[in-house]
Amino acid sequence: MVRIGILGATGAVGQRLIQLLDPHPDFEIAALTASPDSAGKPYRQAAKWRADSPIPANVADIEVVETAPAAIPDDVPLLFSSLPSSVGAEVEPTLAEAGYVVSSNSSNARMDPDVPLVIPEVNPDHVDVLEVQRDERGWDGALLKNPNCSTITMTPTLAALDEFGLESVTVATLQAVSGAGYSGVTSMEIIDNAVPHIGGEERKMESESRKLLGSFDGAEIELHGMDVAASCNRIPTLDGHLENVWAETRETVTPDEAAAAMAAYPSAPLPSSPEEFIHVFEEPDRPQPRLDRNLGNGMAVSAGGFRATSDGIQYNCLAHNTIRGAAGASVLNGELLVEEGWV
Amino acid sequence: MVRIGILGATGAVGQRLIQLLDPHPDFEIAALTASPDSAGKPYRQAAKWRADSPIPANVADIEVVETAPAAIPDDVPLLFSSLPSSVGAEVEPTLAEAGYVVSSNSSNARMDPDVPLVIPEVNPDHVDVLEVQRDERGWDGALLKNPNCSTITMTPTLAALDEFGLESVTVATLQAVSGAGYSGVTSMEIIDNAVPHIGGEERKMESESRKLLGSFDGAEIELHGMDVAASCNRIPTLDGHLENVWAETRETVTPDEAAAAMAAYPSAPLPSSPEEFIHVFEEPDRPQPRLDRNLGNGMAVSAGGFRATSDGIQYNCLAHNTIRGAAGASVLNGELLVEEGWV
Amino acid sequence: MVRIGILGATGAVGQRLIQLLDPHPDFEIAALTASPDSAGKPYRQAAKWRADSPIPANVADIEVVETAPAAIPDDVPLLFSSLPSSVGAEVEPTLAEAGYVVSSNSSNARMDPDVPLVIPEVNPDHVDVLEVQRDERGWDGALLKNPNCSTITMTPTLAALDEFGLESVTVATLQAVSGAGYSGVTSMEIIDNAVPHIGGEERKMESESRKLLGSFDGAEIELHGMDVAASCNRIPTLDGHLENVWAETRETVTPDEAAAAMAAYPSAPLPSSPEEFIHVFEEPDRPQPRLDRNLGNGMAVSAGGFRATSDGIQYNCLAHNTIRGAAGASVLNGELLVEEGWV
Amino acid sequence: MVRIGILGATGAVGQRLIQLLDPHPDFEIAALTASPDSAGKPYRQAAKWRADSPIPANVADIEVVETAPAAIPDDVPLLFSSLPSSVGAEVEPTLAEAGYVVSSNSSNARMDPDVPLVIPEVNPDHVDVLEVQRDERGWDGALLKNPNCSTITMTPTLAALDEFGLESVTVATLQAVSGAGYSGVTSMEIIDNAVPHIGGEERKMESESRKLLGSFDGAEIELHGMDVAASCNRIPTLDGHLENVWAETRETVTPDEAAAAMAAYPSAPLPSSPEEFIHVFEEPDRPQPRLDRNLGNGMAVSAGGFRATSDGIQYNCLAHNTIRGAAGASVLNGELLVEEGWV
Repeated sequence: MVRIGILGATGAVGQRLIQLLDPHPDFEIAALTASPDSAGKPYRQAAKWRADSPIPANVADIEVVETAPAAIPDDVPLLFSSLPSSVGAEVEPTLAEAGYVVSSNSSNARMDPDVPLVIPEVNPDHVDVLEVQRDERGWDGALLKNPNCSTITMTPTLAALDEFGLESVTVATLQAVSGAGYSGVTSMEIIDNAVPHIGGEERKMESESRKLLGSFDGAEIELHGMDVAASCNRIPTLDGHLENVWAETRETVTPDEAAAAMAAYPSAPLPSSPEEFIHVFEEPDRPQPRLDRNLGNGMAVSAGGFRATSDGIQYNCLAHNTIRGAAGASVLNGELLVEEGWV
Repeated sequence: MVRIGILGATGAVGQRLIQLLDPHPDFEIAALTASPDSAGKPYRQAAKWRADSPIPANVADIEVVETAPAAIPDDVPLLFSSLPSSVGAEVEPTLAEAGYVVSSNSSNARMDPDVPLVIPEVNPDHVDVLEVQRDERGWDGALLKNPNCSTITMTPTLAALDEFGLESVTVATLQAVSGAGYSGVTSMEIIDNAVPHIGGEERKMESESRKLLGSFDGAEIELHGMDVAASCNRIPTLDGHLENVWAETRETVTPDEAAAAMAAYPSAPLPSSPEEFIHVFEEPDRPQPRLDRNLGNGMAVSAGGFRATSDGIQYNCLAHNTIRGAAGASVLNGELLVEEGWV
Repeated sequence: MVRIGILGATGAVGQRLIQLLDPHPDFEIAALTASPDSAGKPYRQAAKWRADSPIPANVADIEVVETAPAAIPDDVPLLFSSLPSSVGAEVEPTLAEAGYVVSSNSSNARMDPDVPLVIPEVNPDHVDVLEVQRDERGWDGALLKNPNCSTITMTPTLAALDEFGLESVTVATLQAVSGAGYSGVTSMEIIDNAVPHIGGEERKMESESRKLLGSFDGAEIELHGMDVAASCNRIPTLDGHLENVWAETRETVTPDEAAAAMAAYPSAPLPSSPEEFIHVFEEPDRPQPRLDRNLGNGMAVSAGGFRATSDGIQYNCLAHNTIRGAAGASVLNGELLVEEGWV
Repeated sequence: MVRIGILGATGAVGQRLIQLLDPHPDFEIAALTASPDSAGKPYRQAAKWRADSPIPANVADIEVVETAPAAIPDDVPLLFSSLPSSVGAEVEPTLAEAGYVVSSNSSNARMDPDVPLVIPEVNPDHVDVLEVQRDERGWDGALLKNPNCSTITMTPTLAALDEFGLESVTVATLQAVSGAGYSGVTSMEIIDNAVPHIGGEERKMESESRKLLGSFDGAEIELHGMDVAASCNRIPTLDGHLENVWAETRETVTPDEAAAAMAAYPSAPLPSSPEEFIHVFEEPDRPQPRLDRNLGNGMAVSAGGFRATSDGIQYNCLAHNTIRGAAGASVLNGELLVEEGWV
């Protein structure tokens, strides 16, 4: 069992991490960090627990510590980070320098050339960017990122289509409120409403997807050449990002071929990777957030509604934004880091 | 005052028509039709009134009649139709043949070459297709249509952009539940959910928009050559369709030029046309359904979120789907028919 | 394994029954009935499956039969009924006469003196009313009912309080839309709204609770003498009925004593009965529908918010309305019928 | 025209006050206060305006000042306060001492014996408590309060019933999210959920209602002797508090008599008082928040669902919580203060 720590353990993604990590076949929760206010308190007291299952008994009594190298035991080699990005930007490099391997969901540093941005089923080879990172930064530890939730939702389906030569992607998202954290969207903002803008999200989708599908030659990652245009909307759903995608490819691809490519796209041999990575629906009105977000314990992506357009195809895809799109993504990256010998 | 009738007066759009027509400066409600079950009953009894204002007193006691030429008084020259499309397909031609002028919201016959499909601020000249219609069908009356609600929402903004030469349009809709009628979407379907498919809606948007922006040479309407790809989603909002649009034009257009073209697009000199036809927001997170659907008494369209893409622009637009997108659209077409001397 | 049948298997409660019965330690689904339209079709085709888990593979291919004695195999002794009450009223007696034991969720016949109305943790001894039923009706089979969902939610908490001598109960319900069936509440009715009336529900709560807490002397059930006044509201939640209760008792009871009585109230030794029957929350803002409806796999009841009033106590309680309040209630009654030797 | 000021003008109730006061027949907005951060900025910049109508042009450019006597012009005799209660507790007495008449919606000081708590249609005579207040406190100005939103909703109906001698009231509320302010309820808390507890609200309803219906003998207010037990729930509605009430009276009252007493209860001769104060519905499923909250421009109360119980009656009532229950209540009290010569 690898002893692991959770950075930012009291937040919404932190709580999801605890749900996913207790129990876990290979990991054991050994440290929980939060802001200085919470340090010294047992977790049950530090966190306002809002999940629909109780706090795991093992975790409830762990004493929360500050998010700093000195506060985290040395025998906890792997840290999962769900810190606010400004905090992450400050503390994650310090921790990596101090020798910890950090699998982070925070948005800082995702596009840094020497920081791998990874979905294990899509670009596991990018993990080796860590060699460049260690060379350049002189770190004993490492910092690896997963992409943002709306990017994770569509990228597996794009990876499956890339055998036809992706040239351009247009995507509209219908994102759940949990993506903004527990208090990110007020009820007055969103009941009987939708908000056609999520600050910074469009740009993340447009850049992170190109890095994920980019090629790594051992020295640097070349971004994928496709053109991506995203429009991001918040709607009154709790969990599950639904996305409408239009893709143009160099080679002609029919809706059936696109669906088949996705259904055949392999999963990864890791504990949290679902048996069926991309579930393809035949029903034109699926996937739907409430019905389909929990496929593969929330770690599967699903797709449906394939149609031909004049110069490509359109389809819809969906993933659970706080599991596959955040906490589960970090856990999976942690599993990959162990598998590849980085921990 | 023109005496008018409402076909399908007990349904959701029928109820909106009554709200918009009582009072109205030029029209007086003189006949209400519904299915045979309701015929003979006073309206207050025939309709399950669900609006958030009471039934107008004048209307409550009108005796509902069947939707048939024999049942509608001869001195009611103008009829507004919100019949189910299968009923409309059967009865609207009969009424037009019998001499009534029908301004219809029903989806049947919208793409028939000799049936004008009109938004008065966009293509008022198409009304003259009625001459062809009378020639060909030998009708004394006339049948004119407004487009479907999701098409009406985007088409004014496209009309404003067409001075730059529209080549392709990609659109994702976030549609309100009222678009499906009072009982069209169950609560179990849509609470904490979204449905990425609305049967037939994509095709309507793709064809109707090309007819609306098409050119009429006095003999026939040539569809606009632009390519349209639509993806339609139902979300948990009550009223107001929000749409994400990507447009490519022959001439380069900047986001500012696009916004300016929309803001400058003229309204029509008709009673129900709003002073400001297209309201342009500077805030990137507007328009929003609940906040902006009632602009111009629900008859304005609004737009915002303009951004450049690699080969065009993207923006968002919104309109009230049961006012501008349905009942109000029919009323406005009725006003145009009177103005142009067809009634 | 007891071979069982489900009457009305395509409806919302029917689908829940399938989820709860496949797999089940003692029962094996052997027959599914539905309306004549569906008879002859495989279940996967007959039902519009809307649950968030797929149809169990064993069940998908079962051929649906009509809801009639002749259509149901003789070696299926136990039937779970979720028929519309008008259908239930007609067909359930026929089936019981033909020798089947029917555990029914339908609302017909619940107050018939010789029909046991049972919550196994509350009044298991009422099952023996079946002897009276067989005597009087000459049936080989039997008909047993579970109460309606809003009654089931509060009755366990009242049973726990009855040691103090219940005299009067006032209850306001906040009921989920699933209680009305899949299409029972339209989205236009309930989004941004609440409906302070559910036809017949108040009367059911007021009478069924008195039967459940009534005493059975071997010959007949004497209704409990308490006075019950209910007010029933529909709100925009999917599952889980929340209820505010005020109870007056002969002996004074403090909030702490009430909470302790509920926490100590025993569960039943049946497969579907939860380990902890009534979960008592200390937090004043719990139970909440979304957070707490799945306690005990949806079979637990929860309570909280205990306060003293001038002449009694008030508190809140909650249960999952389609599991504990409907399908799960019938399954549990089936388990009791087997345990007691009626099947 | 009386020049008035709004204390806490940028908040949710402050924005409602602006909507209700511009235009207003007797009042002219002359001062807007907010926290020190906002002081010096034009209102359009200081406030994040979220109403569904634009900021009135007159108001948009007013320079916001601090909430302090020195900052408010002397020729602004009447102030409407929607300050957070902790701020109100500090600053309202200072303003009243300095000579301003303050009509306040803030919850501080509502139960102080020398502070009138008033609904003009219910207890206008309580305004004269201000004489006691001036005597005791030596103020040149005055401080008058309206009750909290859930209390305002039920109290008019109780006032109508009091002719039968109210003895006890049990009430369950279904409250809208706007009652907690714009950011008071997060979307994660309330979508597909309900919260059976609103801190302090039960106690407010139980005490404020007794003060409102209390008698004032010129020297002090004697609280009404009725017993009130409240249970407060937050549900996913935007505006409009719905309440289930059970009332016991000394004299027997039938449902019809109760309804008639409410329908006959008079309104007040003030500009913002609705023509029909209490609207009584015959339909058993009304009032409903979305359909009925805007009756009388949001200033009417409505009631329905009358039923006899064993020892009294039960019914439902509703009012718009941020208009009749907050901003409108303060405006109405301001009108009463002018009418009675206190301004």
